[in-house]
Amino acid sequence: MSSGSKIDFWFEFASTYSYLSAMRIEALADNAGVEVRWRPFLLGPIFASQGWTTSPFNIYEAKGRYMWRDMERLCQARGLALRQPDPFPQNSLAAARAALAVEHIDASKLPAFCRAVYAAEFGDGAAITDPDLLGRLADDCGLDGASIREAAGDPRIKQALRAQTEEAQALGIFGAPSFTTPDGELFWGDDRLEQALAWARSTSD
Amino acid sequence: MSSGSKIDFWFEFASTYSYLSAMRIEALADNAGVEVRWRPFLLGPIFASQGWTTSPFNIYEAKGRYMWRDMERLCQARGLALRQPDPFPQNSLAAARAALAVEHIDASKLPAFCRAVYAAEFGDGAAITDPDLLGRLADDCGLDGASIREAAGDPRIKQALRAQTEEAQALGIFGAPSFTTPDGELFWGDDRLEQALAWARSTSD
Repeated sequence: MSSGSKIDFWFEFASTYSYLSAMRIEALADNAGVEVRWRPFLLGPIFASQGWTTSPFNIYEAKGRYMWRDMERLCQARGLALRQPDPFPQNSLAAARAALAVEHIDASKLPAFCRAVYAAEFGDGAAITDPDLLGRLADDCGLDGASIREAAGDPRIKQALRAQTEEAQALGIFGAPSFTTPDGELFWGDDRLEQALAWARSTSD
Repeated sequence: MSSGSKIDFWFEFASTYSYLSAMRIEALADNAGVEVRWRPFLLGPIFASQGWTTSPFNIYEAKGRYMWRDMERLCQARGLALRQPDPFPQNSLAAARAALAVEHIDASKLPAFCRAVYAAEFGDGAAITDPDLLGRLADDCGLDGASIREAAGDPRIKQALRAQTEEAQALGIFGAPSFTTPDGELFWGDDRLEQALAWARSTSD
């Protein structure tokens, strides 16, 4: 990594398009020489402040139908499995807390753990609300699943997730994935990942 | 044009991202050997069926703020002027009827007329509700503005626009720009233009 380029990757475990970015951001960022900070957060409170009680893909039927077809095409082109979890969206609270617990215990394993959660949820269609599954995924990443489960229930981890979600909203984030740069730019959507990395790189040199 | 590849370009004159596609679709389609059919329609009735009475960029403040910054970055990168019309969104009924009148009178001039409307609206910030402006833009495209204005008021043109909007909704279109292919694929957003053209090309050979 030749420069001090940095980007924050804001993602929501229930979000299909966050899955797309999680599976490719590290390779792209390595190529661009940009350091990625993984920032899980919850869209639920942000959607609620807009009057939504579920995913817009469920509220707006045509948009939801389109999203799944769009995901099918993109996953096929990228060699990614795609299986819709039931229900969609999954409640992502336990997964997001587990991710913050992983970050607290061994931050170097956070990207691998997040990818494992996404692969289980959208590759296999698994329920990421299941604490046993989350523990097994942590084990598979070389973590101690039992410790992660325990840490995920700690009030400081719960508070850290609330604070991270509030920070996302304060940054103007309204959807996921989103990318922010140290100079205050916001990019929304897997479609903007390349542009966000190019911005981070060009403004840090 | 070596193949029979075809794509329908569905656009809404009030839509900022439709401006982006209108200004680049012909060059990209020519390169890809794909024939473009320009299909103006109204998002208003489709939004109304979702319970929206204005643009989602006005309903959801963070999304609106983001959209304008996103447009600034994209327009700068593409060498396009950007000036927000007041009010936003513009009522696009007169422009859409004028476009269908242009298509009826001289279909070969439809793309140039549509680009002129977008350049006036989002490049200069002009009000495209003004029939005098629409007439002048038609004149500038080598059409007879007075004839276009008269034809735009014809009940058959009004009905054609209603039918085109109903066709868009029946195709599952919920936003603009959208692109549809003869084999029934739908692509939404300026970000999907390249993918839509590649799809149209690969499935017609």
